[in-house]
Amino acid sequence: MNAVGVDVGGTKIAAGLVSPEGEVLAEARYPTPHSPGRLVETIVRVVQEVSDGHEVGGVCLAVPGLILAQENKVVFSPNLRAVEGIPLKDRIEPEIGVPLVIENDANAAAWGEFRFGSGSEVDHLVFLTVGTGVGGGVISHGVLLRGAQGSGGELGHVTVQATGPRCTCGNHGCLEALASGTAIGRRARETAVENPGSALGRIASRRKVLGEDVTELARKGDEVAISVLEETGTWLGVGLAGFVNIFNPEVVAVGGGVMEAGDLILASARRELRLRARPPSRDLVEVQVATLGPESGVLGAAALARNTDGAYVLGD
Amino acid sequence: MNAVGVDVGGTKIAAGLVSPEGEVLAEARYPTPHSPGRLVETIVRVVQEVSDGHEVGGVCLAVPGLILAQENKVVFSPNLRAVEGIPLKDRIEPEIGVPLVIENDANAAAWGEFRFGSGSEVDHLVFLTVGTGVGGGVISHGVLLRGAQGSGGELGHVTVQATGPRCTCGNHGCLEALASGTAIGRRARETAVENPGSALGRIASRRKVLGEDVTELARKGDEVAISVLEETGTWLGVGLAGFVNIFNPEVVAVGGGVMEAGDLILASARRELRLRARPPSRDLVEVQVATLGPESGVLGAAALARNTDGAYVLGD
Repeated sequence: MNAVGVDVGGTKIAAGLVSPEGEVLAEARYPTPHSPGRLVETIVRVVQEVSDGHEVGGVCLAVPGLILAQENKVVFSPNLRAVEGIPLKDRIEPEIGVPLVIENDANAAAWGEFRFGSGSEVDHLVFLTVGTGVGGGVISHGVLLRGAQGSGGELGHVTVQATGPRCTCGNHGCLEALASGTAIGRRARETAVENPGSALGRIASRRKVLGEDVTELARKGDEVAISVLEETGTWLGVGLAGFVNIFNPEVVAVGGGVMEAGDLILASARRELRLRARPPSRDLVEVQVATLGPESGVLGAAALARNTDGAYVLGD
Repeated sequence: MNAVGVDVGGTKIAAGLVSPEGEVLAEARYPTPHSPGRLVETIVRVVQEVSDGHEVGGVCLAVPGLILAQENKVVFSPNLRAVEGIPLKDRIEPEIGVPLVIENDANAAAWGEFRFGSGSEVDHLVFLTVGTGVGGGVISHGVLLRGAQGSGGELGHVTVQATGPRCTCGNHGCLEALASGTAIGRRARETAVENPGSALGRIASRRKVLGEDVTELARKGDEVAISVLEETGTWLGVGLAGFVNIFNPEVVAVGGGVMEAGDLILASARRELRLRARPPSRDLVEVQVATLGPESGVLGAAALARNTDGAYVLGD
């Protein structure tokens, strides 16, 4: 039977009707409303739209933020406050008439890569999504690591430099504070001040330098921009080395907007990982760009949907 | 049926015949020989001794260092070089006549705590053993996280301060470099130099200050020694916060020799963890001293022994 995956983001809600083979049979997408009532309505509508005329075994919502799985609630979602505290299952299930579960968005994307993408050939996958922030998800021995409450897999908020820069979460030196798009922007602005004559410095004299500027300049061979990405990659590698020592995975897949920089970041990440991770784990692991791109959320959510018996609708 | 667990340490080899209820029915212990041939002989002898007159379903060796599970080999063991590269299964199994598996010693101890100790009531346990070094093991969703090659769970070599002090593994700022007995000793010697009039300073004028001196003085209320343990606990807490964000466990259990200092270390570890870990994980987790003590290795190894069908001899 088919399942519906819904990726609830801070700016848009995307849904897909997905077959057991991972084929997307129907899609819909709406801007995200930021009031609780309209958010629920929109989720219901998007599910009904992609389900229209098909049998559906279950639905999973991939939601941003920290969840409390037992209560089917999001407890903390800085980019989508409207979703916090809503009893999503109780509100939505009666409207759609099929079982609903919720999952953290990065965990769902990790499961998407595991079932249909970068991790489909392996049993152990560490997935990171590097965008404005850093999200993560881990599959170990074929099991998605949700933890006791469903809030596991927060790889972006592992400390890699305890005395490092402040993170959006309030702590210092989280991986997110050192290896996110936000960190690239901050590093680029600092670099622009130090090198006013550089291309980054010239942009900074007109407007705020963004992470995207760095990737664009680096692609054109600008050495200052390249060094900003390399430094970011090195910090990413510090974090990845820890995850490799913990999980001994065959594959580390990195997705998210920042991965448009590809090897401009991953080459230095791999170098640092080789220095810091231990044998035999470091010799086994392959660090690659995640293959599904933005589809991973919808596909992973669909693959996590459960039927009335509690089994995965799309199979194990 | 009963199983035999063998804890192969750098100084002694301990074995136990263990019942499905976790009762130790027979024990034996020998000093660890440091030549490969005599090491194998001693392991065989210790297994035969505790098995004498009993039916045994399987044996597990808990070995120090990084293992390659598929080959039943230890690939890197700085404290027991003699064990590196020996085909342990091929050499020992024919002598003892029952199936043999190997496991990293900290992973085995984690499994011991999960089956019979601190984690026996939960599904998610992070276990750390803090002694000369820092070892670790994780049970998530009831599964021991070995990773693809059996070398997962290396929690001591996760970076918490990338620019921090050098670790025995060659890297900088591993948890082990900041929160082990070795780190306590280093910190105590630095502190003794800065405070020559302190009790630590007076010891330092006669001989090398050790980690044990710090615990002994701290117990007597010496403030300088207390501050050394608190700083160590704070670094431990930085690492634990990361593990809590990753695994969302109900329990973190900390064992090993350094835990004789108990709350002199754990109080500051809990404080730092509360600052750095995220809700709801940080509100759920209990950080406690592991309950089994040095027995965890033998008990955990026995519980990991497998019978001829590949099932755990002592049950799941």
